[in-house]
Order: sequence, then structure tokens, then C-alpha cells
Amino acid sequence: MSLKIALAQINFLVGNIAANVDHIIEAAVYARDHLHADMIVFPELTITGYPAEDLLLRADFITAANNAIYQLADRIADIALVVGFPEHDGDKLYNSAVVLHQGVMLACYRKQALPNYGVFDEQRYFTAGNKPCVFEFNGTFIGLTICEDVWKSGIIDATKQAGAELLLTLNASPFNSGKIHQREAIICQQVKAAQIPLIYVNQVGGQDELIFDGASFVTDSQGNIVFRAEEFKEQISVIDFDDNHPVTSTCAPLYNEISSEYQALVLGIKDYVRKNGFQGAILGLSGGIDSALVLALAVDALGPDKVEAVLMPSRYTQDMSNEDAVLQAEILGVKYHTIPIEPAVNAFTGMLAEVFQGTTKDTTEENIQARCRGVILMALSNKQGKLLLTTGNKSEMSVGYATLYGDMAGGFAPIKDVPKLLVYQLARYRNTLSEVIPERVIIRPPSAELAPDQIDSDSLPPYEVLDPILERYVELDQSAEEIIAAGFSREHVTRAINLVDRNEYKRRQSPPGIRITSRAFGRDRRYPITSGYRGI
Amino acid sequence: MSLKIALAQINFLVGNIAANVDHIIEAAVYARDHLHADMIVFPELTITGYPAEDLLLRADFITAANNAIYQLADRIADIALVVGFPEHDGDKLYNSAVVLHQGVMLACYRKQALPNYGVFDEQRYFTAGNKPCVFEFNGTFIGLTICEDVWKSGIIDATKQAGAELLLTLNASPFNSGKIHQREAIICQQVKAAQIPLIYVNQVGGQDELIFDGASFVTDSQGNIVFRAEEFKEQISVIDFDDNHPVTSTCAPLYNEISSEYQALVLGIKDYVRKNGFQGAILGLSGGIDSALVLALAVDALGPDKVEAVLMPSRYTQDMSNEDAVLQAEILGVKYHTIPIEPAVNAFTGMLAEVFQGTTKDTTEENIQARCRGVILMALSNKQGKLLLTTGNKSEMSVGYATLYGDMAGGFAPIKDVPKLLVYQLARYRNTLSEVIPERVIIRPPSAELAPDQIDSDSLPPYEVLDPILERYVELDQSAEEIIAAGFSREHVTRAINLVDRNEYKRRQSPPGIRITSRAFGRDRRYPITSGYRGI
Repeated sequence: MSLKIALAQINFLVGNIAANVDHIIEAAVYARDHLHADMIVFPELTITGYPAEDLLLRADFITAANNAIYQLADRIADIALVVGFPEHDGDKLYNSAVVLHQGVMLACYRKQALPNYGVFDEQRYFTAGNKPCVFEFNGTFIGLTICEDVWKSGIIDATKQAGAELLLTLNASPFNSGKIHQREAIICQQVKAAQIPLIYVNQVGGQDELIFDGASFVTDSQGNIVFRAEEFKEQISVIDFDDNHPVTSTCAPLYNEISSEYQALVLGIKDYVRKNGFQGAILGLSGGIDSALVLALAVDALGPDKVEAVLMPSRYTQDMSNEDAVLQAEILGVKYHTIPIEPAVNAFTGMLAEVFQGTTKDTTEENIQARCRGVILMALSNKQGKLLLTTGNKSEMSVGYATLYGDMAGGFAPIKDVPKLLVYQLARYRNTLSEVIPERVIIRPPSAELAPDQIDSDSLPPYEVLDPILERYVELDQSAEEIIAAGFSREHVTRAINLVDRNEYKRRQSPPGIRITSRAFGRDRRYPITSGYRGI
Repeated sequence: MSLKIALAQINFLVGNIAANVDHIIEAAVYARDHLHADMIVFPELTITGYPAEDLLLRADFITAANNAIYQLADRIADIALVVGFPEHDGDKLYNSAVVLHQGVMLACYRKQALPNYGVFDEQRYFTAGNKPCVFEFNGTFIGLTICEDVWKSGIIDATKQAGAELLLTLNASPFNSGKIHQREAIICQQVKAAQIPLIYVNQVGGQDELIFDGASFVTDSQGNIVFRAEEFKEQISVIDFDDNHPVTSTCAPLYNEISSEYQALVLGIKDYVRKNGFQGAILGLSGGIDSALVLALAVDALGPDKVEAVLMPSRYTQDMSNEDAVLQAEILGVKYHTIPIEPAVNAFTGMLAEVFQGTTKDTTEENIQARCRGVILMALSNKQGKLLLTTGNKSEMSVGYATLYGDMAGGFAPIKDVPKLLVYQLARYRNTLSEVIPERVIIRPPSAELAPDQIDSDSLPPYEVLDPILERYVELDQSAEEIIAAGFSREHVTRAINLVDRNEYKRRQSPPGIRITSRAFGRDRRYPITSGYRGI
């Protein structure tokens, strides 16, 4: 017996139920008419997009989502739809998957494993289901599972025990570096143990901090991957099952790590701009590596005509910074302006002269420069309806080496979760595709250029030391003693950890950015500002 | 038989385990030597403070907390301690309460009801306990419960069934308006149904967004309150039990609602400044009602010598604004500066002239003024180590009637959760204690003074209409149709809801502020920025 099942790796918009329904219908029609599919499987919580967060607490939103499912059943014939939705039953809400066919609901499954760690808050909204769900379709017994269900042991087995010959999994599994390999390894191992083929459909697209990478796949009952959809792209594909065995199909190759990270960042910018209706993006271009990378990413995401760069030199800006910024803007073909900040800095200096009398220069004066740039950039952003991209990296965000309302100003922070050393790697990677970042930007020592001859290593340990310390402290929750035992100097560890501990208040006001590591600042790491905890 | 139990309503610092242990010992010594208590009961998660958030994911932190408990047992004799801590067992963490007496652990209870809604994320960290805990002490059988346990039905009963004659409850129950009455009503009703006396110990103090109000109490087995500690203050008290009946003691009167709210705001500012080690606070004083209220609150929290006001008039500032600001600063005895913003505004206008050529004036130019003020205030804050208080209210935060990096700049937003109409009520309330806010500030129409003759009602529905719409939409999750059906015009509802929906990005970058309603912006309301949901 043969069965054709389509995988709908689609980019939905969180909260827009009507648009998502149209998207579902359009995909189903395509799968039926062009791919001759008998069934199409969508990602987790298809109707609402994922994660809809506290929209799920609104009765009007839940009612609309449930009504949409009833209407969907009647809007298309001759193909079965497997769709995720927040199922409302009495005073409970379930993260459910429903099978609709010829106007009838064939089955409805309630997710059993509700993740409530990391970026996930599913127990805030949902009650867990407590049983497997298997339905018959064209003579095949098919089991339903949702995302976390197939990461935990037991649920695949129980579904097979309940009679499933084939498993469908609806997912909203966010990207971080290495996640695709981890995901395939864990799920294939479970599939192999249970000896049952599995279709894994993941959503794709950017949603605030999260990137969903797609990379949907199909495994046979031995845990061999027989089909894989592309990463970071929408794709509707079909897989043939012949007597419950998937017929080997095309497997999109996996990008290497650096390329995946780059693609994730591009998609994140593209979707944030597009889904929030901005006219384009602007950014401050300093001649340094961070803004150079963000400009390259923005142009790759939006095209050069939608991106605008602003050079804002001060008395501390070196000539090479301006030269390199202009050079890159010209290479990439983006419009740029040069607006020296001196007049505003002088104005503030004068206005503050009286109250600052008798005080000595400190970071206050440096911050004023950064904030003058913030005012200029926000004015351009406001006037043109363009998103201001802020260009700080994760190393800076970690230690607070950034000015609130200054270089931290902006609506979106693309490289907020990219450590400085990775910024360099990504810049070099981008240049292997075509050289868009001037070499001097990559090789010169990093500097904030807020004081004479300032370089980052005046205030911070070298990034070769700082970045691994930060990874251990922030992402891996290692203690200072563990980090020192791993070979880092007490002085460097103390300095780094103290800065991380004391700068939570800055991070709390930073714009959202794209998560690419296993723990990003934001919903992924929830620390108190008021805290007596000191890592050292 | 007689038993003296002390209630330790104490203000702990989240994360500072060593300091919290010292605080516990000090309180226990006092209760033993001065109050002659046999036992002292502390709030929920005493050792770590509440909520410690993702510090609870750090192995070093959990180890330290567990070690602290072992050490605590040996540090004091002749009084039993009932202390909350994050109990580590294998790969699981429990929200536990332990009874320590003469170096021995008499009992350890694991919280069964783990709240994971609103501001609570306990399922992110803890595994739920599954059984009641009763221990014998001096011939009395005492049951242990923790916070949410006594709000839900079943757990009090089960603990009584297990033999308890008296219940202890350790709490970290945050304040919102009306919460104290709600809390006492629900818990007394449960106690009455179960016929068992209860000692309820709540923590007190400000922790980022949250205020814990204390108001610890004791009820007899009929649900009558026989003792109540003060609201918003530390207090160690003792209650006598005579044959398991509590002897009626002093009941601190409850403040009325407006007074509780005012006290909560004062405590919130005081603790944020103190616990984060600031030298004091500064704020922009505009002559408007919001900054007038924040100044009064700050002075009540910190004293006039720790508070500094900055007047930053522009060409649009009316004389009466400056006059009233100066008048209030002088009444309260705070230092103030006047720094006109014209030079900076002119500088930016000149710098942007070329790129803005041919465009028309819009909110961009208004935002520049607000941002010039932000730069001045942050410079003063940076130079002096004083916390910048931002003065926006909840109505503005809801509809985005505020400038990012302008009037939204600051480390703490005391009245962020106070709707505009309540701002007026609180100002009038404060003036009943002593007149510190000039009457004209209260009666004049509110204006941002960013354009000629501008008043808020040019852009927004009148606050008498706006505030109740916002309460229904933001706090009660009502739909537009429900709000219209309640008697509000479609035009007003549409305008208000659209603004709320579109301004999540601003709120995401706002400083933390004090929660006083049943749903504050922040951890209490988690909305996506990128969202196709439109309430109307």
C-alpha cells in the first residue's frame, strides 16, 4: 500500500490566525494538486504560530484559534490536514494536533511533554495530555506526537504500543548552533530503538529572539534519514510510503556550523523587518568589526536599497575608521550619510559645565558621545520608519561594555548573541562568499573610539580569554572555581564574572536579538537585577 | 500545653546566602532571648530570597544554599528554626521547608503546588512534592505548607488528615492592590473549612518589579485573624498557643487601598536604591503630575538629601511648569538644577538639517527633545552614581506615549504600573499627609510639552475613558467587543487597543518598575513583539 505525505515547512506569523489559515489552505492545495499528497503535516501550533506567549491567555484569541480549526475542516477536500492548535476544553488548554479529512476530525492528540525550561514556558499555558493517539488513514495506523514528546524517552514507545506503524511529529524547534545535528541524533536514536519511521516537520522563520531553522526530515524505522528539507527556507515536500517504508528521497545537505549561523542571522533580520512592517533598516557604521558584520548581514537579508549606513565620527575617530566604513558602504552599494557628532557633544559639554565643575572625566563623557550617536540614529529611524539595528555583540552585552541609550539604542540587535571571536569568524566567512568587509576592519585591534587611543583590551581581558570564560559562566553555569580550574587566571575570571553580575540592568533594557547559542540573554536567561549573588 | 512561635517577617536580599544566614541567626537569637519563642518561622526560600530566578539553575548557588542549611542547624540552640531553601536531591530541586532544632533536622517538606502563572515560574526550577509533612514538637503535631499550597484546596485538608493540629505556612506572596484582603479571605475560608489554626509568614521588601508586603498573620481554627503584623515593614513577633489555640494578640490595622499602594511604591524605591547600592536618586522634574508624584515618593523613600531634581525646560515649556517644579523642590527641600535643553536641540537640528531637508515636522522632532533630556539625566546619573528614576505611568506605557531613550531613560520606573487616574489619586493622597505637590500641578491638563500648546488629549482619549479601557484590555484580557459592550465607544476602544498592540517594542526596553496591579508589564505580561494579533 502506498501513502504520500507532504511536509509543510512554513514560515507563519505569530498571532495572525486568519493569515495562517490562508497559508495552510494554500499549502494544502499545492500539496494535493502538485505533489499528489494524501496528507499534509504542519508544524506545532500551526494556527497561532509559535510561541504566541501570553496571547494564549486571551479568551478571544483562543476562541478564534479553535473556530479556525472547525472552519478549516470544511475548506478543503481530498487531502488530510494535520494541524497544530491550542485546544480549548473546559477550563483547560492543550497543545494539540488535529487530523482533518473530508470535513471530519479523524483524531486529536494532546502533547504530553511540555517543556518549561530555557526559552520554553509551555506549562504557563498548557495542561499535559496523558495518552498516545493513533488513527487509521488509508489502512495505515499513524501515531501523533508533538516536538518535546520525541526528545523524551517513553512517548514514542507508548505510541507504537498503541498500534502506530508510522509517526508524525509537529515541531517548533528553535535553532542554536549545533542544534540540527543534536536534534537528528537524538530523534534518530529513539526511532531506531522503537523501530518505527517518523516524519518530523519543523517550522521555519524568525520570531523575535528565536529562529526556527526548518530542516524537517523523515527517517526510516532504522533511524536512517531518508529525506531532509532545506535549512532556513520554506519548503513543501512529499514523501512516499510504500507498505509503511519511506522511499528514499532528496536530502538537503546540512550547512556547516558557521554557515548555519550566518543564515540564521540573515533570516532573523529579514523576518523581524518584514513581519514588523519596517521600510528597511539603518545602522551606525563605525569602521569597526561589529557594525561591519551587521551591515553585511542586513544587506544579505534586505538588499542594499533597503539599508542605510550612518557614519558619526568624533575627535577620537581615526581616519581609517571613516575610510573603511565608506569603503564597505560603497562595496555593498548602500546609501550612507556622514554626521559628525561634535556639535551635539559640545552642546552637552557646555550645558553640563556648571554642574560638572570640579569633577574629573570618566565614562560619563564617553557615554555622552555614544548617546549623541543614539539620538541621531533614532531621529533617522523615526523619520523614515526604518528599523535601527544596534550592533553590539554578546561579549559586550555580557560585560556591559556598551552605553545604554547610546550604542545600545535600536529596535533589534542582530549579533547580540554572537561572541566577539565568532563575529570575526562570521566576517571572514562572509568574505569567502564575496569580499564585502575591508580586511583592515578585521585585523585592526577593536576599539570603542570614545577616548584617545582607546582599545578594548584597556578595559577587558583579550577576547581570546574573555569569550571562553563568558561561555562557561553564562551558557554553562560554571562556577568561578571551575573556570579557574580549567586554566584561566583568577584575575581574568574575577574581572569577567564581576562585570557579568553587575550589568544585568543594562541587558534588561537591550533590544531583542537573535539567539544562536545554547543560552542567549533574554527569555533564555532570567536573572534578577537586584541580587546579592556574586559569582566570585 | 503552651507553645510560643515567632513569625519572622524579614526583608532578605535575593542571592546573598551568607547575609541571609546571618539575618536568620540574628532574628532567631532575638526571638529566643527577647520573645522567649520556642520556634521561629521564616518566609519561603529564606536562604536564597525570592524569587532567585535563574540563579536556581546554577550548581554553585544550589550547593551553597544546601550547605548553608546544614551549617545553620549547628549555629543556634534552644529554638527551632523553620527555614525555606531550594532542596537538592539527585537531579531534582524542590521548594522546601526544613525544621532545624538542636542540630537536628526534624522535618523537611517539599512544596506541592508550584505556581507557574503571572509573575511565577516555579515549574521552571522545581519538582513538586507529593505528600504532606507533619512533625511533633513539644507535644504538638505541626504541619508544614508553602505559599501556593494554602491557596489551593486539598493540601490543608491532607495535612490535617496526616495529623496536624497546627499549620505553618512559609510565603513569598507579592503585593498588588487588594491582594491583602484577597489573601486573608481565601486562606481564612480554607482554614475555617479544615478547622485548623494557621501561622502565615510572608516576606517583606522590594525585589525588582515585585513588592512583598508582609502582613503576616495568625488565624484560629475558625478562620478568625488573631494576629497581624504590619504591612511593608520588617517585624519579628511571637504568638502563644495554649493547647493549640492561638492567644489573641495585636492586629496591625490594614491600610486603605490608596495608602497601601503609596507605601508599596515607597518601599519599592527604597529597596531598589538600597539593595543595588546607589548613592541616591535623580529625576527630571517637569512641572507635570507624574514627575511630581515620583519626586514625592522618592523623598519619602530616601529622604530629601538623597534626591536631586533636574528641570530641563524647552521653548515649549510653560512658565507655570518651571514655577511649580521649583516650588515643589523647595517644599521638599531637594537640590535642583535647571538645564535648558535648547543648545543640544539646536545642535541636533543643525546636524540633521541636510538629511531632513524636504521632510515635514513630526514626532521625530518631539523625540529629539525628550532624548536630549535623557542624555542630560544619564550624564548626571553616571557622574554621581545616582539612580535615574523615570517618571512614566502605566497609561503611557500601555499606549506608547513616551520616548524610548528619552523620558523612558532610567534605571527604575516607580510608577510604571500606576495608571494616570491613580497617579492623581496618589498625589492627592500624599497631599493629605502634608502638602508637597502644588495644587496647580494636579489640576492643570496633562501635557508632554513637546510642541506648542500640546495636551495629552490631542493624541489620546481622555484618561477617564482610556484608563478603564486599558484595565479591561491589558489586565483583564477582555476583547474589544466586550469592552465596547461595556459602554465604551468603538472609536476610543480601537484607538487604545491599536496603540497597546503596536507598542510592545517600547515596553520591552523600558526599565523595571513596581508592580501594584494584578497585571504589570514585565514578567507578568509576556507578549511577542513580532505579532499579527490585533485586538481590533
